[in-house]
Amino acid sequence: MSTLKGNAVIGQSGGPTAVINQSLVGCVEGLRTCDAIEKIYGAHHAVRGIVDGDLIDLTDVSAERLERIAQTPSSALGSSRDKPDEEYCRNICQSFEKLNIRYFFYIGGNDSSDTCRIVNEVAKSQGYELRAYHIPKTIDNDLEENDHTPGYGSAARFVACALMGDALDNKALPGIKVDVIMGRHAGFLTAASSLARTSDDDGPHLIYVPEVAFDIDRFIADVDRVFSRLGRCVIATSEGIHDADGTAIAAKLAADVEKDAHGNVQLSGSGALGDYLSQLIKDRLGKKLRVRADTFGYLQRSFAGCVSEVDQREARAAGRRAADLAIDGSDEGSIAIRRTSNDPYQVSYDRIELSDVAAKTRTLPLEYIVDGCDIAPSFREYALPLVGPLPIIEHF
Amino acid sequence: MSTLKGNAVIGQSGGPTAVINQSLVGCVEGLRTCDAIEKIYGAHHAVRGIVDGDLIDLTDVSAERLERIAQTPSSALGSSRDKPDEEYCRNICQSFEKLNIRYFFYIGGNDSSDTCRIVNEVAKSQGYELRAYHIPKTIDNDLEENDHTPGYGSAARFVACALMGDALDNKALPGIKVDVIMGRHAGFLTAASSLARTSDDDGPHLIYVPEVAFDIDRFIADVDRVFSRLGRCVIATSEGIHDADGTAIAAKLAADVEKDAHGNVQLSGSGALGDYLSQLIKDRLGKKLRVRADTFGYLQRSFAGCVSEVDQREARAAGRRAADLAIDGSDEGSIAIRRTSNDPYQVSYDRIELSDVAAKTRTLPLEYIVDGCDIAPSFREYALPLVGPLPIIEHF
Repeated sequence: MSTLKGNAVIGQSGGPTAVINQSLVGCVEGLRTCDAIEKIYGAHHAVRGIVDGDLIDLTDVSAERLERIAQTPSSALGSSRDKPDEEYCRNICQSFEKLNIRYFFYIGGNDSSDTCRIVNEVAKSQGYELRAYHIPKTIDNDLEENDHTPGYGSAARFVACALMGDALDNKALPGIKVDVIMGRHAGFLTAASSLARTSDDDGPHLIYVPEVAFDIDRFIADVDRVFSRLGRCVIATSEGIHDADGTAIAAKLAADVEKDAHGNVQLSGSGALGDYLSQLIKDRLGKKLRVRADTFGYLQRSFAGCVSEVDQREARAAGRRAADLAIDGSDEGSIAIRRTSNDPYQVSYDRIELSDVAAKTRTLPLEYIVDGCDIAPSFREYALPLVGPLPIIEHF
Repeated sequence: MSTLKGNAVIGQSGGPTAVINQSLVGCVEGLRTCDAIEKIYGAHHAVRGIVDGDLIDLTDVSAERLERIAQTPSSALGSSRDKPDEEYCRNICQSFEKLNIRYFFYIGGNDSSDTCRIVNEVAKSQGYELRAYHIPKTIDNDLEENDHTPGYGSAARFVACALMGDALDNKALPGIKVDVIMGRHAGFLTAASSLARTSDDDGPHLIYVPEVAFDIDRFIADVDRVFSRLGRCVIATSEGIHDADGTAIAAKLAADVEKDAHGNVQLSGSGALGDYLSQLIKDRLGKKLRVRADTFGYLQRSFAGCVSEVDQREARAAGRRAADLAIDGSDEGSIAIRRTSNDPYQVSYDRIELSDVAAKTRTLPLEYIVDGCDIAPSFREYALPLVGPLPIIEHF
């Protein structure tokens, strides 16, 4: 069997992660094994770079430099929030034809896999032979068919380490603390705050995820109950918590609601939700209370120097696997990471259909959510192997 | 010479740090070498624990457990924001007499050293023989007579790592980003954001510290200049920036200004300043701009798993040195860390008078501040040895 001849392009889309460059480098390493592939390009700022012909030539970048790129957080090629429609995708295919690109790899979340799917369909409908692969990436951990996604382990590690320190800070100087964590629809990242606990009464004491409607009276009663018992209370909440009608609490607070190309309301990059909950607690439970709020913001996804080694390794392997499959002649798909064993922890990298993952959202299984305000201990078994060994905590 | 016989108490005061427990353990280790000291107590929640007789017996805590405590961020004994007046200090001395405490160690910043000074004076005036030592601790790095203070290196490391990732995030998805960093009067911690740069045009592009009056028009012009040139702009600002009259910008925003016992207005634990600057940029430079703000908050001082090894070592040594001096008969003082050589990096731990450091604030030398909106490259030489080797960053 002769391998499809031509050039390759790789793009990185959506929010950066601490390990998205591992997937890029894994893919480049795979493509380099194939003589039929002449040029390997990186798309500068994702689909926009493809359409504009703004490409970074990765063909001859040294292995040492690639390794440094792999270790660097955020998207080295630049990213984009563009949501390509069919016309945009036809422009992408025109660029492919012009540059003789036969291999297309798109590293991203569910929106990015949908872009990959549309580009693939347009190419097929035009009789243009193309290998189109989506490589999973999202700190939200919300891709269907995956046990977990590259990017999640490192972001979850950041959240766990942050809560470990913050819960101890709150114990040292007692009060009520609200920590707002990324996650629009899926509570996986916020649930990782529960990994911070090492003994009874450790914070976070209350955890709120978007899978359950957020009720203000219930919330205040929860805080009051914990604070009355311990004299302190650490709350971890997803930025995406919403009322029973599905309206995000954060969206109600913004004077000018900002939406991206995907119609998503801006949740991150503002302390408004944390400050609102903080004020609410003071108004309802006492003006004199020491109430503080921190919004972890963009630090969660691209902090340098707090990365999960398992996450790094898997992100690299997912990129490599996509390249290998495409070279072997599989013309389209996405990579799903599946856990084959938990002790010892082992995963497989399976090819799935683009349509299995495109534009779908997986949420935190309800079995992990306790009374709408906590995460079950069983979540630790799921998440800890992804996060890696956590710092040692000792109490008096 | 016979060593003063009696018991010892150690307290941890003010904001926690990632290495304050190293100082606690260093002090305990020193005290254990002295047979004349029978009991070693930890004061639960600082001065309050002393007055209430709420003490943790550290005399026989195992070396292994102490080592784990040393590695744990935040104040293991619990902290306090109480500002003892003379009467409070007389109560402290009464407790000392009751418990035969002859050795008093207080780990904290400038307010804590002042408490130590007052307690010492009250004891002396009552003819009560006491060894009173202040052990330096503050992420603000604002103690007089010190080259730097334990706690700063780790917090500065957090800030540098955060800005490294965040500047890359901003490069991947361009826009304007405001990062708010702790620091009421001293800009040392915010200045550490400059360590994130590894090449030209790396963020942060603008840095504002409390040593220079903050002018809104000037700020907007700065942002406009950087954004026009690069199409992106990362801003690091101290929470303590203030106008020409000395009023903190953050204080102007709060509906109910909250003050602690020291008369300090609440700056941390709210995203208000970042959100205000963010809105200001939109209002003045364009509603459509992608402007985001993150407030690093309490994560800076107690994040688990991003600690400077130099900082750990020095915090331990400062605690040990205070114990050694007190045992040797020196009846009062504070420890000052002084740099004796920068290449190789070396420090000494000098005894200074309590009055040299008590209630005084050191600020960032003006030579490090460039045009009121940046930090000079020479700051790297000062700060990098304290922070330790930073993660590797590679660009395309």
